Amino acid sequence: MTDRYASFVQSGAGRALVKRLGLPDPPRLRRFTPGDPLLPGPALVGAADGGRLAEPVTKILTFAGVEPRDPVAGTTAADGTPQRYGALVYDATGITDSTGLRQLYDFFHPHARSVLPSGRVIVLGTPPAECATPREATAQRALEGLTRSIGKEFGRGVTAQLVYVTKNGDAGTLTSLESTLRFLLSGRSAYVSGQVVKVGAGTATAPADWNRPLDGQVVLVTGAARGIGAALAKVLARDGAQVVALDVPAAGDALAAVANEIGGTAVQLDLTTPDAPTRLAEHLAARQGRVDVVVHNAGITRDKTLGRMDADRWDQVIDVNLSSQERINDVLLERGLIPAGGRIVAVSSIAGIAGNRGQTNYATSKAGVIGLVDSLAPVLRERQVSVNAVAPGFIETRLTARIPLALREAGRRMNSMAQGGLPVDVAEAIGWLAWPASGAVTGNVVRVCGQSLLGA
Amino acid sequence: MTDRYASFVQSGAGRALVKRLGLPDPPRLRRFTPGDPLLPGPALVGAADGGRLAEPVTKILTFAGVEPRDPVAGTTAADGTPQRYGALVYDATGITDSTGLRQLYDFFHPHARSVLPSGRVIVLGTPPAECATPREATAQRALEGLTRSIGKEFGRGVTAQLVYVTKNGDAGTLTSLESTLRFLLSGRSAYVSGQVVKVGAGTATAPADWNRPLDGQVVLVTGAARGIGAALAKVLARDGAQVVALDVPAAGDALAAVANEIGGTAVQLDLTTPDAPTRLAEHLAARQGRVDVVVHNAGITRDKTLGRMDADRWDQVIDVNLSSQERINDVLLERGLIPAGGRIVAVSSIAGIAGNRGQTNYATSKAGVIGLVDSLAPVLRERQVSVNAVAPGFIETRLTARIPLALREAGRRMNSMAQGGLPVDVAEAIGWLAWPASGAVTGNVVRVCGQSLLGA
Repeated sequence: MTDRYASFVQSGAGRALVKRLGLPDPPRLRRFTPGDPLLPGPALVGAADGGRLAEPVTKILTFAGVEPRDPVAGTTAADGTPQRYGALVYDATGITDSTGLRQLYDFFHPHARSVLPSGRVIVLGTPPAECATPREATAQRALEGLTRSIGKEFGRGVTAQLVYVTKNGDAGTLTSLESTLRFLLSGRSAYVSGQVVKVGAGTATAPADWNRPLDGQVVLVTGAARGIGAALAKVLARDGAQVVALDVPAAGDALAAVANEIGGTAVQLDLTTPDAPTRLAEHLAARQGRVDVVVHNAGITRDKTLGRMDADRWDQVIDVNLSSQERINDVLLERGLIPAGGRIVAVSSIAGIAGNRGQTNYATSKAGVIGLVDSLAPVLRERQVSVNAVAPGFIETRLTARIPLALREAGRRMNSMAQGGLPVDVAEAIGWLAWPASGAVTGNVVRVCGQSLLGA
Repeated sequence: MTDRYASFVQSGAGRALVKRLGLPDPPRLRRFTPGDPLLPGPALVGAADGGRLAEPVTKILTFAGVEPRDPVAGTTAADGTPQRYGALVYDATGITDSTGLRQLYDFFHPHARSVLPSGRVIVLGTPPAECATPREATAQRALEGLTRSIGKEFGRGVTAQLVYVTKNGDAGTLTSLESTLRFLLSGRSAYVSGQVVKVGAGTATAPADWNRPLDGQVVLVTGAARGIGAALAKVLARDGAQVVALDVPAAGDALAAVANEIGGTAVQLDLTTPDAPTRLAEHLAARQGRVDVVVHNAGITRDKTLGRMDADRWDQVIDVNLSSQERINDVLLERGLIPAGGRIVAVSSIAGIAGNRGQTNYATSKAGVIGLVDSLAPVLRERQVSVNAVAPGFIETRLTARIPLALREAGRRMNSMAQGGLPVDVAEAIGWLAWPASGAVTGNVVRVCGQSLLGA
């Protein structure tokens, strides 16, 4: 679970050697601690002519304690040296034609080398499907090529994202744009880069205190005894949630330790048994009376090439990683235990996007999770319940520690951060999607992969 | 332009060494020659309970000269040895729930090791958005994880694809399913793997002779003097098209040589000049009177990191690769030169999907091409004009030959074929999308990348 190479590189002696040999240079990523400022420096905010988001975004940033700067006025620091920025934020919604893409160059080119380590690049656009003309849709779709290239180019822990904000917004849109910017600018999104996030319309509730964005929410976490699940339980509790930590009876001791540490409750249940969904529903009904957020984190791998895979390996993986999520959702929704404002967050995987050798079962289940998000989100929108997934890439856990060294090193380095992510990185992304403020973010699959080269 | 490593590995001496050292083992891919049988052996055809496509697919295969076999009866060859297959084709449209995914395992597991080199795996599904229930949509979406994993696992030049066929089909659907199967099963798709192809409804016309699927079609190819464009002109002419080969005046000699070789006509025109679209339209109106197929192949790179890129590099790349396509489409469509049954095929790039360091301009332009396809396809459907793109990965050309050796080797090997593709591979994919028979295939972006690991 430790990346010794990264530790070495981040030491003084290591740095010199790495530079001389041209080796991968994993930066120390800025991660979140409650009370941290959102950014390590001011944000440069620009907009294409006619953009509709620069004004609300500037307000959001100011309210969140970030100093917004103007591209013309803001390029020199108080001491006369070139200003360096915690973020470059660009409202591209005014671009209605490919010739207008030049405005991206005009904004980013002069400031491309002024972003601080672990700084942020955020481009705001209009969902292509909502655009008035094919020309506008084409230009808005082109933004993705820019942000993904910037993510690969800027280095030093800088992340780059494209946020598509609906034209047909409501009050929920602005609240969720704020929750999304607070996530993407902060250290919470240390290992999220090269992503496209959609902010739509819907009901979203800003917290009384943005340091406790999950205050009072009842959150169920499956697979909570270890790894990502345990990190998740801690992050959610830190953010104010009442956590119901669930895992199989065999993991009971570890589960109890997690639940005790965070003041949550523990439920020992094997989700693959036929009566598990009703038993879980009855438990939640009796204890908390509801569950505001369901996080389907429980997952297993049983790797073998398809020709050598026995049927049990197929069945178990599909059942734990996919079918049991469907059964639980159905029972909890049927019984009205997920109220308006509810959230379902599922854990997919980069393997579900790209496929993987030896993981036909796992990749099928995790691609199914993406299908679950795509298909449930429109159905549950009217109940004001959001459905999203995160897709982790290479995360340093007990499981990845068992991967042979050469493969493990490839997984760690083949991304824009040149290192594996931590369980807390996945947890923070799930947390953001679970916030009451994020209700207008639904139907998204957000990779937590450091912008891994792997994809489809 | 030659892959010496692959040539070495494919020699007798090379093979032994590669096996001993565990080096990448690029197979010799099956490529298309007119008159070739569609497959090197029979096709095993299976279906999930209630599937709607096994019957039409069996008919299509039989009509195309492929011997379809049944999963139960067909597992032993005439001489008693285990039967080996040219393709495994599975109709998964009957799967309506994740528990039904087990049928995939039951079909593929026993035959996973019986696919011949450069064989084919094709899974047929229902587009998730058309499914009756979230459970069905989830299961159908899960298919993608399976096919992408099989593509990475089977090796030896075997490709794997997922074909989503609309439930709301018409006569055009069946014709385009046939054209798609003929492309995907044949050596034409040697370097296409891990793709998801959508066959919808629409007007599609089967050719009198499937060996001349473009008979009599007037096809405009931009950037036709060299590389992919030159290969394209030859492939299209081989398939029966009248080719109008276009390139800049500076490439006039090479262009004339291509046009002469294939009995086509040459047009020297710089597409970035303001009057180029009207001059082109006038030329086509005067000579051929129409253009059935427009292939936007012309493209340039001007690589630099964003901070070091001058404005000309940005402008030229956006203009040649994206804006000029838009201007030409608009003028040709306005003047009615693209008739019903017309085709627009654009060339995107894997960089437009994944982004690339040093290519903010190129990736933006190529992501825009995807936006052009997405946004024009629904608009032009009513005119019976299809719009699609291909996105090449690492293709062996004059341009890639200039990439430094280490990067070039990485690009060549990091895909399921362990080798770069050839210009003809891109040309064959464009050809298929251009066929009159492929009219119900629109709004697709098909990668020609050997299932490169790179993606988004």
